[in-house]
Amino acid sequence: MSKPLILVCNDDGITAPGIRNLTEVMNGIGEVYVVAPDSPQSGMGHAITIEKTLRCDPVVIDEGPQKDFSCSGTPVDCVKLAVNVVLPRKPDLIVSGINHGSNSSINVIYSGTMSAAVEGSLEGIPSIGFSLLDYSWQADFGPCKPFVDRIARQVLEHGLPRGICLNVNIPKADGPGYKGVRVCRQADANWVEEFDARQDPRGRGYYWLTGTFKNYDPGSDTDEQALKDGFISIVPVQSDLTAKGMLETLNKWSFE
Amino acid sequence: MSKPLILVCNDDGITAPGIRNLTEVMNGIGEVYVVAPDSPQSGMGHAITIEKTLRCDPVVIDEGPQKDFSCSGTPVDCVKLAVNVVLPRKPDLIVSGINHGSNSSINVIYSGTMSAAVEGSLEGIPSIGFSLLDYSWQADFGPCKPFVDRIARQVLEHGLPRGICLNVNIPKADGPGYKGVRVCRQADANWVEEFDARQDPRGRGYYWLTGTFKNYDPGSDTDEQALKDGFISIVPVQSDLTAKGMLETLNKWSFE
Repeated sequence: MSKPLILVCNDDGITAPGIRNLTEVMNGIGEVYVVAPDSPQSGMGHAITIEKTLRCDPVVIDEGPQKDFSCSGTPVDCVKLAVNVVLPRKPDLIVSGINHGSNSSINVIYSGTMSAAVEGSLEGIPSIGFSLLDYSWQADFGPCKPFVDRIARQVLEHGLPRGICLNVNIPKADGPGYKGVRVCRQADANWVEEFDARQDPRGRGYYWLTGTFKNYDPGSDTDEQALKDGFISIVPVQSDLTAKGMLETLNKWSFE
Repeated sequence: MSKPLILVCNDDGITAPGIRNLTEVMNGIGEVYVVAPDSPQSGMGHAITIEKTLRCDPVVIDEGPQKDFSCSGTPVDCVKLAVNVVLPRKPDLIVSGINHGSNSSINVIYSGTMSAAVEGSLEGIPSIGFSLLDYSWQADFGPCKPFVDRIARQVLEHGLPRGICLNVNIPKADGPGYKGVRVCRQADANWVEEFDARQDPRGRGYYWLTGTFKNYDPGSDTDEQALKDGFISIVPVQSDLTAKGMLETLNKWSFE
């Protein structure tokens, strides 16, 4: 049997330690192509590049057997380019990450890492986004690698329905190890913004976006709770955003 | 009773005809602040600006009673800045658009217009994204204005739960008028990409993203079908992306 074809992407850029560690794990599972942004794209959400041109060129980053391509666009652009231009055939699996920092709960909608996985799922390719709850460039990815390997193999074995991908978040590896894996729902959480207002050297005002994370969700079945308890969280994520529970209510309103 | 406070945003930029028409309608309903991008941000999805600074300055665009602010960031940045820095209090309503072009079905996840509405809903503010199925800068927004007015007033009257906003799409005004409004679910559709590969004057390759829209959904209750039938479509959109139907299946997999 031929090896599975695996596409690796991320949003921290092709040289980030997270994607190099993810690539290493994937090299043990299949034939790997890395198509990733040439620079950090954190917080890019599901952005695509339609007003500008895109570059996508082969590069050599390390001595691994994978093929690396550096792309000028967003994570979603990378997936589109990979699937339509770079790869020899439709991949069997797309993995995105490992992100430096959490994409749990509401972070999923701001995340370029997760948008790459969502884009893969839209094209009918089983896709997973991985994130480690550690923003440091020196983060220790070692302890989570066996779990990343296992989750990827499970997705290859079972497949995923079109339009559904997995959002995997991994606690920081600073304790006695992981307690295991928990399948969860997305916690109802949010960011409360606090803009940092400053003045430039010419006296004109500008802002830095900053904020505090707020979890409103007391549920024991959420990703936030799983992570807090030391588990790796897996949330199945869908691209159908319809709030089905609101349809009946809206039908009673007077729109005409 | 004091007038409702309304925030107007978009992704086509503060001078786009769509946002000027939307502002005109909102001026008839409440006290209006426009906080919108200084340049086109189509396809920006839920992107936020965290690696760069943000500018947000008052500008005068026309002679209307609204207060206009031009912002260097994405549509989501605009909503965050407006709510946290610009507005005198939390707004009663956020309207985004009127987008030049469709945000029906899967377009919702790529859309900066809709991401502004989603961001508003996360902050607990009733929010609506409006889009006209006409990309032209000369599009005729006249015929849809009474519907935009009516939908906004209904949302002000009834409110919306936190985390849920409305995605309103409006057919191109080239027929005998609109048949009415239909509450719908998001159609299961997708873009099939066809990259346009070119060479720059120095012989290096680049790409333009292009594609064809594919509707896989035969349902009569979708936004695509409503629009095809000449109706204005309203889809309630939620920020909880959990694919609840997959939780049971995933719990049977062997992750450890």
